[in-house]
Formats: sequence, C-alpha cells, structure tokens
Amino acid sequence: MRILVLAGAGALVWTLPFTLAIILVLAVVVISYQQTLRAYPSGGGSYIVASDNLGPPAGLIAAAALLIDYVLTVSVSIAAGVAAITSIVPGLFTLRVEIAVTFIILLALGNLRGIRESGTIFAAPTYVYLFAIFGLLAYGLLRDAMGTLPIYHAPAGWVPSTGIETLGLLLILRAFSSGAVALTGVEAVSNGIPAFKPPESHNARIVLIAMGTLFGTLFLGISFLVTHIGIVPDPSEKETVLNQLAVSLVGEGSPYHYLVQVSTALILVLAANTAFADFPRLASILGADRYLPRQLQYRGDRLAFDTGIIFLTVVASTLVVVFHGSVTSLIPLYTVGVFIAFSLSQSGMVRHWWKLRAVDKLWWARALFNGVGAFATMVVAIVVGIAKFALGAWLVLLLIPIFVILMVLIHRHYTELTKELHAKPGDEILSRGLVPNVVVPISRLDHPSLAAVNFAQAISSDVTIVHVVENQAEEEQFRADWNAFNFALPLVIVESPYRRLIDPLLEYIDEIDERDPERPVAVILAEFVPRHWWEYLLHNLTAWRLKFHLFNRRNTITIDVPYHVGEGAGEILGGFNIAKKR
Amino acid sequence: MRILVLAGAGALVWTLPFTLAIILVLAVVVISYQQTLRAYPSGGGSYIVASDNLGPPAGLIAAAALLIDYVLTVSVSIAAGVAAITSIVPGLFTLRVEIAVTFIILLALGNLRGIRESGTIFAAPTYVYLFAIFGLLAYGLLRDAMGTLPIYHAPAGWVPSTGIETLGLLLILRAFSSGAVALTGVEAVSNGIPAFKPPESHNARIVLIAMGTLFGTLFLGISFLVTHIGIVPDPSEKETVLNQLAVSLVGEGSPYHYLVQVSTALILVLAANTAFADFPRLASILGADRYLPRQLQYRGDRLAFDTGIIFLTVVASTLVVVFHGSVTSLIPLYTVGVFIAFSLSQSGMVRHWWKLRAVDKLWWARALFNGVGAFATMVVAIVVGIAKFALGAWLVLLLIPIFVILMVLIHRHYTELTKELHAKPGDEILSRGLVPNVVVPISRLDHPSLAAVNFAQAISSDVTIVHVVENQAEEEQFRADWNAFNFALPLVIVESPYRRLIDPLLEYIDEIDERDPERPVAVILAEFVPRHWWEYLLHNLTAWRLKFHLFNRRNTITIDVPYHVGEGAGEILGGFNIAKKR
Repeated sequence: MRILVLAGAGALVWTLPFTLAIILVLAVVVISYQQTLRAYPSGGGSYIVASDNLGPPAGLIAAAALLIDYVLTVSVSIAAGVAAITSIVPGLFTLRVEIAVTFIILLALGNLRGIRESGTIFAAPTYVYLFAIFGLLAYGLLRDAMGTLPIYHAPAGWVPSTGIETLGLLLILRAFSSGAVALTGVEAVSNGIPAFKPPESHNARIVLIAMGTLFGTLFLGISFLVTHIGIVPDPSEKETVLNQLAVSLVGEGSPYHYLVQVSTALILVLAANTAFADFPRLASILGADRYLPRQLQYRGDRLAFDTGIIFLTVVASTLVVVFHGSVTSLIPLYTVGVFIAFSLSQSGMVRHWWKLRAVDKLWWARALFNGVGAFATMVVAIVVGIAKFALGAWLVLLLIPIFVILMVLIHRHYTELTKELHAKPGDEILSRGLVPNVVVPISRLDHPSLAAVNFAQAISSDVTIVHVVENQAEEEQFRADWNAFNFALPLVIVESPYRRLIDPLLEYIDEIDERDPERPVAVILAEFVPRHWWEYLLHNLTAWRLKFHLFNRRNTITIDVPYHVGEGAGEILGGFNIAKKR
Repeated sequence: MRILVLAGAGALVWTLPFTLAIILVLAVVVISYQQTLRAYPSGGGSYIVASDNLGPPAGLIAAAALLIDYVLTVSVSIAAGVAAITSIVPGLFTLRVEIAVTFIILLALGNLRGIRESGTIFAAPTYVYLFAIFGLLAYGLLRDAMGTLPIYHAPAGWVPSTGIETLGLLLILRAFSSGAVALTGVEAVSNGIPAFKPPESHNARIVLIAMGTLFGTLFLGISFLVTHIGIVPDPSEKETVLNQLAVSLVGEGSPYHYLVQVSTALILVLAANTAFADFPRLASILGADRYLPRQLQYRGDRLAFDTGIIFLTVVASTLVVVFHGSVTSLIPLYTVGVFIAFSLSQSGMVRHWWKLRAVDKLWWARALFNGVGAFATMVVAIVVGIAKFALGAWLVLLLIPIFVILMVLIHRHYTELTKELHAKPGDEILSRGLVPNVVVPISRLDHPSLAAVNFAQAISSDVTIVHVVENQAEEEQFRADWNAFNFALPLVIVESPYRRLIDPLLEYIDEIDERDPERPVAVILAEFVPRHWWEYLLHNLTAWRLKFHLFNRRNTITIDVPYHVGEGAGEILGGFNIAKKR
C-alpha cells in the first residue's frame, strides 16, 4: 500500500485531462486484476499468469521485466525519498547521490540482519503519512471553497516556458510513471496472495480496491490543487511538486510542512523495502521452476535471501549513481518494465477466459475487461519505450532478452541433467557391497591423526596409512615413532625429495586405482578446527588443496575427520573430543 | 653473481678513498663468509648462523631483515634496470614507475608459470654483460694510458655545486649501498649451498671469491674512470653514471653504448629474479622451524611458492610506486636491512669460534676476522639507519620488530598446539571399533544419491536416509518413489514448512547425537561434479553450506561422494562412473 506514495513524490506535474486518463488506466488495471486474483487464488503474479496461459516464453519475459523492476523500485523510491528531504534541506541537494546510496545500504544491512516487514512496525508511518497528506488536501480544498487559495509565483531564475511540447510529453510520462509505481503495488499483492489472512484471495482483492481508491483520490486531489494554485515544477528537480504544494498551502518551514515531507520520505524508504521481499519471492518461484539456480527456491534459507539482497543493493545503487539520483530519469526505465509485465499478464487472462468459454457464460465480458487492460498497458509500454529509448529505456529492453536467454539456458541445463542422472528402480544394486580402499595420509602422529586412523578402522578392513618424507633419515624416524603405537595397519612411506606433498599422494592413489580399479578409494583427512578463524592460515591448507584435487578425480571419496581444539580437548572418545556439541 | 651488477647501475658516484673503503668492507665480508661457509657446509644464511650461535631472537631479527631485503632487491634492481633503459630513451623517463611495475608483474607471472632459474638460459646475458662492461673499462684505461681520455662537461642547467656536504654523505651512502647489493649475493650463496655441485661448500666458496674479485675490479675500474673523466652525477637521476661513462667513452648512440645499457638492464631484471627464488627459500626454512605457516616449508609445492611470489610482487610494486621508482631513494632502505643481517651473522660467527676455542687453536684469528666484519657492517647499518631515518629507513626499522613479533606468535601457537595434541603410544586404543551413525541426506533419487547410499552401506551397518519436504504431499510422493527402490534402509522424512534445508538437517543430527552421544556421526553428501566450472553456481551450494556447518560441530565426520558427469557417465561401478580417472 505504501508504494502508491511514490506518486505524490515523483516530481509530479499534470493537468486534469491527463489525471483522468491515468485514473482510468488505474481503474482498468485494478478491475482486471480483481479477475486475476479470483482466477489464481494461490498467487497470480505476471510470471505465473503469463506462462500458464501464453506459454513459458511470455512468462519469462514478464519475469525478467519484473526482476528488473524490483531493482528499479529500490532506486526510484529511495531517490524520491531523498528528494523529499532535500526539498526541506536544500543544502543536502549536492549530496543526494551519496545519501541515496547510504539509505540503500542501510536497508540492505537491515534486511541481511533479518529485519523483515512486520506489519505493526510499518503501520505507524503509513497512517501518519495518510493523515498528513489527506489533511493537506482537505485544507487545500477548504481554502479553495473559501476562495483563499494562494497563487504560485515561480522564482525569477526559472525558465518554465521553454519547450512546451517536451514538457507536454514529460507530463504524460511522469503521470503514467506514477501510475506505474502504484501498479507495482498491484503486482506485489498478486504475487503475495498466500501471505494474506484467510480468505486470502478475498482479502487481497479488498486491499487492491482500497489501494486503487486511495491512490486515485490522492492523485486527483493533488492534481486539482496543483493546477488551481498554478504550480510550475522546478526544472532542476531541487524541489518536489508536493513540497511546492505544501509550502504554498501551509507556509515554508511550518511544522505541518515538515510533517508532510518527513512522513513522505519515511514511507518512500519503506516502499523501497518491499522490493527486498518481492525480489526473493519471485526468484524463489523461478528457482522452483528451474529457471534460476535451484538453491534460490529455498526462501527460508539465508543463501537465497542474502544473494537477492546483495544483488538488489549493488544494482540499485549503481543505477542511482549513473542517473545522478534523478527521479525523472529513473522513472521511464521503471515504467517500461512494469507495463510489459502487466500487458503480458492481462493478455494471459484473455486467453484464460477464452479457454473457459464453455464453462463460463460471461467469459466474453471478463476477456473484454482484461483485453482493455492488456491494450492500455501495452500502449504505455510502447510509448514510453520509444520516447525514452535513448534516455535509458534501451537498457531495460536489452536486459530483458539477456535475462530470458540466461533463464532458458539454466532451465535446459537442469532438464538435460535430470534426464542424464535419472535413476530407475534396480540401479541401486549395481555396486552394493564394494568395500572401499581406505587411505589415510598423516603428517604427524598426533591426536587429530589418531582420530582419522580410528575412523578408518571403524569403516573398513582395508586401511593404508601414507606418510610423505623428504629423506631416509625422516623415514626411519617416522617408522620408529609409528612402531611405538600398537596399530596393526600397513604403513606406506613415500619419498619426495623436493618437499612436494600433493603430487606424491595423488601418484600413490593412482597406483591403488591401477591395482584395484573396481573398488572406490576413500581418502580420510584429519582436519584441525582451531579456536580462532585466523588460525586457519596456519593449518589445513594442505588438506584443503588435496581435497580440491581429490574432488576432481573419479571414483574417489573424501572423508573429513575434524578435530576440535579447545574446551574439553582432553576428552577423547569415538576418536573425537565431544565436550560440547556445535 | 649477477647481483653485483647493481653496483654499476645505482647512479654511482665516488672518489677513490671511498672506493677503497668499500672494497675493504667487501673484502672483509667475503673473507669472513669464507669461514661461515666452511663452518656451515649445509647452508649458512644469516638466520641459521645467528640463531644457532646467538639464539632465536637474533636469528629472527636477521630473518625479518632479510625477508624485507628480498622485497627491496626486486624494487631496487628493477628500478635500476629501468634507469638503464631511460638513460638511452629519455622519453620513457616519465613512465618509469609504470614500466618498473610492468616488469615486476611480468617477472612474477613468469615465476608463477614455473620459469625458474636454469643456469643455461641466464648464463648468456651474464657473459654478454661482463664482456660489455669490462670491454668498456679496458677501452677507458687504454685511452687513459694514451692520454686521450675525454673531459666531462656537465649540462648548463645542472647545479652540482650546491651542498657539497650532503653530496659527500650521499656519496658514501650510495657507494656503501652498492656494496650492500653485492652482499646480498653473498647471502644468497650462503643460504643456497645445497644447490651447488659437490663438493658444495668448496664450490660455493670459489663462487664467493670470484664474485668478490669481479665486483671489486668493476668497482675500482668504474670509479677510476669516472674520477678521471670528471663525471658529475645527474641530480634528477635521469641518466645513470654508467650511461654518462659509456657516452663519454664510446659516444652517444653508438652500438657499443646500447650494448652496455641493454645488457645492464637485462642483467638487473635477472638480478631481481633471484629474489623470487631466495624469498621462498628463506620462508621455507622459517616454515620448517615453525616461525611461518608450516605449509611454506614444502617449497616444491605450488602454494608456498605462489604465496611468496604474490607477496613479493605486491610489496615490491608498492615500494616502487611510493618511491617514484628512484634508485637513490630505495637504496638506503635496502642497505639497513642487509647490513643488520650481516652484522648479526658475523657476530654469530665470533661466538661460534669462541665455543670452539678448545678444539681450534686458530679460533682467535677466525673470531677476529668475523669480529671486524661484524663491526664494519654494524657501523654501516647504524650510519645509514640514522642518516636516512626520516627518508624511509624508519619503515624498515619498524617492520623488522613487527615481523619478529609475528613470527614469535606463530611459533608459540605451533608449540602450544603440538603439546596439546601430542599423542603417546596407547592413545590409539581409546576409541577403536566405534562404528559411526551414518546419515545420508538426499534431495532427489538420482544417480549421485544412489552412489552416496551405496557407499554408506559399504562402510556401516547403521545407515539412515534423510529427506526434507515442505508438506505432506511431497512426503507421500517421495515415500512412494523410495519404496520403488529395493533399499532395506530406514528413511526419515523431515518436514520444513518454510523451505529451510540446513537447520532441519542439523536439528536431526542433534537428535541422533542426544540419543547416542558416544558414537560419531558421519554425514555422507552426494556431490555433483559438473563439466564446466560455472555450473557449480547451479549445484552443490547447499551441500557446501551444510559441510561448513558440520565442520564446526564436534564429533561429526563429513564424507563427500563426488559424482562426475560427462564421458562415461553411463558406466556405473562401485557407485561411481570410472571411465577416466582424474
């Protein structure tokens, strides 16, 4: 719901006809999404609806467009939030890029540390904002009714008259873009149905209508007042239109002016935060369908979540820097993506109703609604894509096919592999019962090594100990030490005159493989788990490198026997010290 | 041997008394090192001699000084080599830092790819250089004898008269420093005795004398000619003294002039290359003595060698950049370190002879020689350290104690740990025969999973298969699939509603530990080895994270069963495809 606030902050300028056109598009989208939510009660984002009805390619295009848009949501919202602040503290304007990047990083850190959206924390700013902004509108309308509305005087330095036509197009775009931002909220609701209280689909539809109504009212009200006061937007973007409105109505620096701006900034930062939840959600759906790395599907696991957040942060920050934190520059990019996704989703719904034409007598009415939605959003996507192509829309139009191709390749990789690795009942008996040749390389006769040797004896009757020496003297010394212990195991000493370690061991394993190619080789490595992380620099490096080489050998199993040093190091049991677990 | 060439390139200026003083120091050092080589036939670097006779602290100070000096050898030699080139191509002077860093990186890459010193490749440039330089000297002396020696005229812009005293100190320093560079050659010979042909010690001594004689002659000859021609060094360092000499004698741009400069540059680059062998050699000795990470002792292994080379490259390049590629600025740093190491080594030898006083009647004569060497080198170290303290010597004097403390801490860590981990005969029976609880987490029923299950059955009679599901439907599906196979193994299904994977598995392993705390748990992970490295992004990520968590648990063994996809993926044997090994 917060997302619709962007509309008020995006340096808005409009005239009433445009406003009405935008409200119409919004209405069409909200109504047609009512139908989507009814048809897909368990979650109907653009990716699902488009791939379900139009086939995977359409779904992937929608998905790529949306993934890009979630990134842009962060850039645009934060840029707009910073604009709200610099409107009241103009001295910060030159630092807006730095401030925006700082906000993005703070949000990312918060999310990495697990601060998720919990309705209660975020509800307060939302209500404060709605109170402030509707209060402002009500006051403005009251003054209008009383005939005391102030007249706006543009500062002397401004040249608002130049290029009326460009300004005209700019007006349409800005207005549509604001609408677009509100529509991302629609997409979030559609994807996130399962997160609503039951009856989920019903509640989601109510939220959608409430959002649409609030946004429409806000939009209409601000538009009306801005036109009547005669506000001209600041061409340098130093002041937002909402700020101009607030200053005109309640006076520069009044407490109410600050309330409006601060609550706007806050709500915009929170709006950016929604993308941090939306992005991993869509990535998880794509991961489950094998269009993104399989691991991403486990949304509850840190890896998937963290990967998404870091990706979002880096790309969103880069965009803010590249576009100098300008909301006007970022919004066209945003608009293209979201309207492509919407158009595909709506087209999918038309197809959906066509398929149900035998069952549903009203199919043509429903298809008509979605058809109008599909058409309207497609027109917006095309207009913005062409008009703003050189100014950044090309980037989005280039990235969408790249993402789609990447997802197709990932999908093909998984599909082919699944076929190749497919196991059928009966395969399990192919190799049963082949006891491995166990090799234990040890460098010293200490407790970690003993633990490894003991484990080897526990799992196989065929264990060989290997030790690498540089010369004869070392060999004799080690044999003597070894014989003092009571192991009934063969000891192989490998001589390596140049103090190499890995190669002689690998050569020895090769020999075993040649002697006995049918049985697997299992190499047991004693590893030392130190008290502090930096101590790893002094230990295990050889074991890790050996492991890497072994991993690339066929038919070779690697076994790590970790030895924990520290509290309870004295208690040796089962080959290990088990004082405290974990 | 090449190292002594630096002397001729280090922007040398001297007068005959200084020359004689330096030759005297060189003679003292060469003679006293004759004694060291005789006493330490298996390698007698400063670290070994000092720690043997004066105790580990003195040895560590010498070692720290030498490690720093090997880095400086690279910086100084390359800077001098570049100076030889820019003397004939003055247009490159402004690019000297970039050229020097490029040379260092090229040398490093060559060494990383395994281009070591092979006598034959490097012999040719050495002979060419010796031929060129001695030819130049002979020609100069001939002209002097015939009375046709040219007179040097300093360019009009130079102000060589200012600050005769500073120039005086500078002269001494430069000259001593040149001697110092030659002395590093002495250290290299002493550390590297085992690399000589047998009889090693004898041959090393001969090389040392030859080096000393060649350097002395070269030094004296250049000094004589420079003085007689009246050459004044270029205060801007744009031209080396050797270049001035060559231009005076054979004319600017003559082929012989180029021969002298190019062979000098080449030999200096090769001189830098010696540090790439010396540094790992000393690090290996320190690693074997547990003053540096143990792994470094295996010089034949890539890790130790590569670590040393990367360290050298980064630090040497940084120094070249910080000191703007100026040989004059770098040489004092170099001098301090090498003379500290020498002084400690010589003092150690005095003590050595004192200990042998009962056996060796001539002990006092030998001790006297080494004593003079120790005193002379100590004086140089102190003079340079004080005179050049603010200009960079402070850095060396700060780094030496830091390195020493670090090495002491590393040594203490290893010593304490060895005591803690010490195993005595009898310890090996503590845990013999405890069969592990084997857990095999599987996510799919494919060939990699079957391989893991088969290996589990081969090593233990107590195997549990674990599978994580999100809901009841998934559980039923998996049970049905599993039952189609003919495994007589318990299957545990863990439900994880939020699609988490790692935590439920760890909790299950905790349960096993609680039920049966005495036996170790072994977790078998089926890992997929893809055809291309980038495919790792799509696989195994969960297994790797699980492994990390398991590594930090006490009493838990991790077993990797890799499954190689690709050629021969069809042949499954021993649980693996074994078409081609490695």
